[in-house]
Amino acid sequence: MSEKLIGSCIFGQSGGPTAVINASAYGVIRAALDAAEITKVYGAAHGIKGVLEDQLYVMDEEDPEELKLLLHTPSSELGSCRYKIADPETDDTDYKRILEIFKKYNVRYFFYNGGNDSMDTCNKISRYMESVGYECRVMGVPKTIDNDLFGTDHCPGFASAAKYIATSCMEINKDARVYDNGMITVVEIMGRHAGWLAASAALATVYGSGPDLIYLPERNFDMNSFLADVDRIYKESGKVFIAVSEGIHYADGSFVSEAKTSSTDGFGHVQLGGLASTLAEIIKQHTGAKVRGIELSLLQRCGAHLASATDVSEAFSAGREAVVQAVSGVTGKMVAFEREYIDGAYHCKMVLLPLSSVANYEKKVPQEWINEEGNGLKREFIDYVLPLIQGEPELPLVDSLPRYARLKKVLAK
Amino acid sequence: MSEKLIGSCIFGQSGGPTAVINASAYGVIRAALDAAEITKVYGAAHGIKGVLEDQLYVMDEEDPEELKLLLHTPSSELGSCRYKIADPETDDTDYKRILEIFKKYNVRYFFYNGGNDSMDTCNKISRYMESVGYECRVMGVPKTIDNDLFGTDHCPGFASAAKYIATSCMEINKDARVYDNGMITVVEIMGRHAGWLAASAALATVYGSGPDLIYLPERNFDMNSFLADVDRIYKESGKVFIAVSEGIHYADGSFVSEAKTSSTDGFGHVQLGGLASTLAEIIKQHTGAKVRGIELSLLQRCGAHLASATDVSEAFSAGREAVVQAVSGVTGKMVAFEREYIDGAYHCKMVLLPLSSVANYEKKVPQEWINEEGNGLKREFIDYVLPLIQGEPELPLVDSLPRYARLKKVLAK
Repeated sequence: MSEKLIGSCIFGQSGGPTAVINASAYGVIRAALDAAEITKVYGAAHGIKGVLEDQLYVMDEEDPEELKLLLHTPSSELGSCRYKIADPETDDTDYKRILEIFKKYNVRYFFYNGGNDSMDTCNKISRYMESVGYECRVMGVPKTIDNDLFGTDHCPGFASAAKYIATSCMEINKDARVYDNGMITVVEIMGRHAGWLAASAALATVYGSGPDLIYLPERNFDMNSFLADVDRIYKESGKVFIAVSEGIHYADGSFVSEAKTSSTDGFGHVQLGGLASTLAEIIKQHTGAKVRGIELSLLQRCGAHLASATDVSEAFSAGREAVVQAVSGVTGKMVAFEREYIDGAYHCKMVLLPLSSVANYEKKVPQEWINEEGNGLKREFIDYVLPLIQGEPELPLVDSLPRYARLKKVLAK
Repeated sequence: MSEKLIGSCIFGQSGGPTAVINASAYGVIRAALDAAEITKVYGAAHGIKGVLEDQLYVMDEEDPEELKLLLHTPSSELGSCRYKIADPETDDTDYKRILEIFKKYNVRYFFYNGGNDSMDTCNKISRYMESVGYECRVMGVPKTIDNDLFGTDHCPGFASAAKYIATSCMEINKDARVYDNGMITVVEIMGRHAGWLAASAALATVYGSGPDLIYLPERNFDMNSFLADVDRIYKESGKVFIAVSEGIHYADGSFVSEAKTSSTDGFGHVQLGGLASTLAEIIKQHTGAKVRGIELSLLQRCGAHLASATDVSEAFSAGREAVVQAVSGVTGKMVAFEREYIDGAYHCKMVLLPLSSVANYEKKVPQEWINEEGNGLKREFIDYVLPLIQGEPELPLVDSLPRYARLKKVLAK
């Protein structure tokens, strides 16, 4: 146990929102407010930009009941950013400014919640503060619906998105089979480089109402075998339900979403409206069938009403753990998850990873969890994802509609 | 009380699916199975087409527990159709065939669940059977997310779609305001001629997280004042959230979804991908802002996981009432809803309307419930819709995913 470090803390949110990133925020804020070593708790407006611009909200001023509602409030309540910080060796302007702010508010703890890029930011700040001899403990809290963070069994945010996708696919499948004429449905799911989310549509199939075919960016996409798959099922049953990751690409790396089609105007213009409508148009031309393209869009990442209680709880715990560890002397680490099975029951154990080992790597769906044809998932994937989506949180409602946290967001002076 | 009529019954589902049409199916089937006068309960495969093609499922063969799961199973479990039946005076081929099937199975009760067109079908069958002297009681059960059925306060299916739309808009709004750069979001909502569903997005605004602007087909759309509205709010806050009904149209009646834009290719080709992307492109060209178009697509009509318990219960009751009334001698009627307030609390009273008075009329959002600018709803609409979305049904789940009814669908011989 290292010496006690007394001072204030800053917490920031970064990257795309999720259904549970505010649960991690609550974990950090609650634990920081409760920690004797932490004198003041600041929330940065729009992540690191709030630090650079001296836009800090005083969390001590908030109503504790409203803060607790963060557990079920989707998106990033403090605001997010996609600001890419420079390398301190190349350009230390931002770091000097951060140090200035840290000194101004006597910040001795910095907690940052985000994905790959955010862990990189965290790591750079940690190294810089060390290099200039400013004592500050820097901890990363993971977050990303994409589930592509290296070194952790899974990421907070992924499971709730997976549950939204699985449930929505079950409903779409019911709707897509209702008429007695032919119908082909294409659902586009987020995930530019890793197919974890699209793979989650396989849950719907296993539970009796899901896609026939699922394509991930972990395999090269081949249009001919894709159309052959579609043809075969269409001939068998007159209905085909296809789930695709937005990031599927050909062997040469080019995205299928950029495919040129000989569409209505005959000029081969690139289709607007994303992959679902591009593929729908190609399938229509090929089969002559009625085809519907559906984009799950950002609903899949902010669907707090369908969150996994397991995900909410783990997201909260990750935030709290970051504070507990920092107060006890740890720095330069990200909180990560390890999976354990105790008497066959899933348990999530928190571990710490060096920030440097996490930043800028991407974790993909293992090849051996994808079927041979590259159009579906094996049982191994289901066994992986199923424990993560368990449990329905008790959502705070007013008149049967969600009641989100309402923060005062009092700016620090 | 008329004389007892002993015989079997046929039940059919028609038109687009909803989150609760199967709750009405369960109401009809359960009450028919329990009625001493009804000797056998048949479910028509794909509505009236199942009658014409002699594809009838024997409901008596189903497991009662599975039938009960219909309460929370979205879409039309028996299959639907959009078959437009001829006028019996012009062409009575179909009616002769229906009579043949009715005689074959001694059908004395016919229950049909659908929207405008289905009530028209119902009405024609009722008149035909009367004209040929075949005793058969014909009853309509209303259904449509569009809420445009004439003579009833509201329709089963609407409220659950409204709740899905309101909740999803609340989540989208949270997501759409997360970054500190400008962002305009356009959400496209179902409703070709009536704006009830798009209007429901106003619930999200009233409950603290919803669209700034809402446009319905009940008002002529003017692109210039629309862009002025968008400009004004964008300049004020840098964020605009717009909800539009798919059916918005110009004063000349042409749909905005068919608008030509000077898009990427410069040839003014009609945009593919629906109204949301068309409007997004126009706004982008006008403002230069980042614009996102989102189509709620069919998720809004089959979102059983977000159903209103009030809607489920009313849908069930409407189905049951049709059977109870028919057995007691009523025919040629549709079950409709009347709203009552008892000590200030909402109650739904069931009444009967002549099928002929319902068929082929469309009920729209009253002009006086829309604000003067035509870009939002007044409190009167909120007071109308709010009681309908109340209550969360206890959804049957397995491993935190929906457990839908699994029917055997044994064909009658």
